[in-house]
Amino acid sequence: MGDVMKVVIIGGSYAGITAALTLRQKSKAIDIMILEKSSQIGFIPSTVSWILRHPGHSHEDFNWITVEDLVEQDISVRVNEEVISFDDHNVTTDARSYSFDRLIIATGSGQQSRLMTTTNDDRVMTVKGCHQVDKIIELLPQVTKVAVIGAGLVGLELADALADLGKIVHVYDHFSAILSRHFDPDVILPVEEALKKANVSFNLGKYVTEIIKSSANPDQLRLVLEHEDGDALGGQSSKGTQDFDLVVIAVNTRPDNAKWESLVHLNEDQTIWVDEHLRTSLPNVFAIGDAISVNFIPLDYPYYISLVNNAVRTAKVAALNCLSPSTEMVKDVGSARDVKTIMAGYEIASVGLTGAETIFYASDIETATISVTKRVKSSEQLTCRYFYDSVTHVLLGAQLISHDKFDYELAILTEAIATQRTIESLASKTMPYTSDYNYPISLFDLLVQTNKVAIKGQDDHEN
Amino acid sequence: MGDVMKVVIIGGSYAGITAALTLRQKSKAIDIMILEKSSQIGFIPSTVSWILRHPGHSHEDFNWITVEDLVEQDISVRVNEEVISFDDHNVTTDARSYSFDRLIIATGSGQQSRLMTTTNDDRVMTVKGCHQVDKIIELLPQVTKVAVIGAGLVGLELADALADLGKIVHVYDHFSAILSRHFDPDVILPVEEALKKANVSFNLGKYVTEIIKSSANPDQLRLVLEHEDGDALGGQSSKGTQDFDLVVIAVNTRPDNAKWESLVHLNEDQTIWVDEHLRTSLPNVFAIGDAISVNFIPLDYPYYISLVNNAVRTAKVAALNCLSPSTEMVKDVGSARDVKTIMAGYEIASVGLTGAETIFYASDIETATISVTKRVKSSEQLTCRYFYDSVTHVLLGAQLISHDKFDYELAILTEAIATQRTIESLASKTMPYTSDYNYPISLFDLLVQTNKVAIKGQDDHEN
Repeated sequence: MGDVMKVVIIGGSYAGITAALTLRQKSKAIDIMILEKSSQIGFIPSTVSWILRHPGHSHEDFNWITVEDLVEQDISVRVNEEVISFDDHNVTTDARSYSFDRLIIATGSGQQSRLMTTTNDDRVMTVKGCHQVDKIIELLPQVTKVAVIGAGLVGLELADALADLGKIVHVYDHFSAILSRHFDPDVILPVEEALKKANVSFNLGKYVTEIIKSSANPDQLRLVLEHEDGDALGGQSSKGTQDFDLVVIAVNTRPDNAKWESLVHLNEDQTIWVDEHLRTSLPNVFAIGDAISVNFIPLDYPYYISLVNNAVRTAKVAALNCLSPSTEMVKDVGSARDVKTIMAGYEIASVGLTGAETIFYASDIETATISVTKRVKSSEQLTCRYFYDSVTHVLLGAQLISHDKFDYELAILTEAIATQRTIESLASKTMPYTSDYNYPISLFDLLVQTNKVAIKGQDDHEN
Repeated sequence: MGDVMKVVIIGGSYAGITAALTLRQKSKAIDIMILEKSSQIGFIPSTVSWILRHPGHSHEDFNWITVEDLVEQDISVRVNEEVISFDDHNVTTDARSYSFDRLIIATGSGQQSRLMTTTNDDRVMTVKGCHQVDKIIELLPQVTKVAVIGAGLVGLELADALADLGKIVHVYDHFSAILSRHFDPDVILPVEEALKKANVSFNLGKYVTEIIKSSANPDQLRLVLEHEDGDALGGQSSKGTQDFDLVVIAVNTRPDNAKWESLVHLNEDQTIWVDEHLRTSLPNVFAIGDAISVNFIPLDYPYYISLVNNAVRTAKVAALNCLSPSTEMVKDVGSARDVKTIMAGYEIASVGLTGAETIFYASDIETATISVTKRVKSSEQLTCRYFYDSVTHVLLGAQLISHDKFDYELAILTEAIATQRTIESLASKTMPYTSDYNYPISLFDLLVQTNKVAIKGQDDHEN
């Protein structure tokens, strides 16, 4: 190790940049370098819908950080330089080799789907990069009908934005419900209905297997679903309802670590194995963000959590541990998988486990759904579905939906799930009073109540 | 005790109504009665400015609850009925007597100031009731210049609203800084400057001792400050700058318990003495809200905290304890004194102790001020002044100011102060990512840093 510690970060992802910024915040005296294989850094897929809502702007107007910003903080950035290999003190790119004291793998994720064949057409887009965003913006004036493949957060935020721009949008997903990773179908139903009213159609429960040129109109694209063939579909959609001017692929992300397989130990789910300090199997090498699985707190089990706040948390832990002797390293506490967005006029949020995931919980669970009025003289309600251990009463999961804001409640519920607090412990919580939000019976008062439903635990199922 | 438990609540205050609603939520099988000496229930002074911002409405459009709403929940309400006396099983009003199993005193607060003499003029208002609000609304079209006495939350919210309505507003307070109970002067300075730009003038550091008719213009009112006399003032303000069309008194509230002095034990500060279960010295009698002092968590010392969320919390504790045997009663945890409002375009919040209160803390304190950018491509910042124990690093106080929203941060900081967590324990906190608020270095990352200032503790002062 030289006089000056040298940290190299593979990947100009949100996680990679956060690690670099955290390292610089903690020490002015270390060398920090980011290696990025593409020409862009810090891109986040959900930015796409945000940019679409601001016509006349390109992705550059919304970059949260630039290479120049990083250089200004004395962080070196090498774009268009792809890492080929590394060991415990050297990393080799397609251009040259660098030595390091610590290496952080922040290579992000790829999109994986059962979509086997696509026509080689520039009207089929992913949302994994700035160039695609600019292309979508460029095409948009000529577009009437859009297919979005993927009814997760990114796909539906995009569908919502496109519908607001007056487009006819069809959403496809192989899951039979929207946002199924984070919400129970009946909780999220108001969002689905609001999107339908805004000209968004849903085609759920079947895989899209192929994207072909439309036989009815060669300027358009057609989606083939599983157990269908393109011609049969053509017959069904004689009105051309299945033909699109633009297809955007926004399927869930998966780890993209195959190229590291011979260098560090991978888990079965293709994430990089890390210990609780986020160290890989190779000395001096850490991994963060979408490259790893983390502890999903309510289940105390490793989960792949492809969310920005998970990237941020793991980046900060790894950055601190890069600078610490192994005896003083901090542990990554894991994630409660908290997400929040605004969709079709609703604020929606989810934290902890969902109804579908209760089958993975060992003990018995109880669940209930409560609604509170937050605003005086308003019929608007905040609705909350939540899950807790039926014996310990530890809160395990919560889903929120309202036209009103609920950041304060979300913060308290997230904190409770992350620190395994009981529903009773929240009963004395009060929020600061403001003139228009002042009904004294809050969400927290209603958590302990009688209209609950029992769900058998995994241990019972196994008996 | 009869078959059906009977709870009587003295005072249709926010606290009293919250106690009644909580009791009803917990049990359908008890008798609940509220006794209110005036004709109105549930009024909150800070509602005034909110109503002023909605022209064409009266206070009735903004009542958060009515007598009818309560009756619908099978809660009896007797308005215009003043309590004269009570013992441990009976309460006597100016109309009749009622027996009870439990009594809750929720009589709220009065306004107390060194303002000795006021002209008997209906253009001098307090903000303690609906009728005053309606009167202010009625007078407003004829009003050009308003004096607001009191630069606390209620007074300044009112000044802000009146300035927005185009009025010229002068604010008076005997403290030399605005909002001095909750904010350090330099933290709140941007709000003071924004209010000045909006035609609000400040006259701080002197008591208003008298309100007289203007000698220059008999249709107007004039304020006399301490060490002044009205004539001398008249000479100074030959341009009539000290003459007003309307004077609103919004001074800080004080306990109003003199009439109970022979019935229950009072503290030196005139609050009703209560134990940790909020029981008074008289069996079966509880007291809540502005009638009592509560534990101010950062100082672990009783404080008078005249805030709605304190009323709500104590009301719920007392309601639960009314229904519990003494062995199962819950303790009131006390208050972190968290407040939040919007003023002159700023969101401002304070929780825990302020700079002025550090002299009451036994040990040494460190303080720092940090600013973070929350929004991409924005120069807007969230600024936070905070205080923590220099040895244990337990967070003691925080003040927030920004043009951006910060409910999530406020919830986390309040929870940390209320549960005495360290600044280090907050470092791993992440917030859910949203497209426009996505800078990864959050407030919580900056709490542990080097630009701190030491403040000697009380123990050191005494050495």
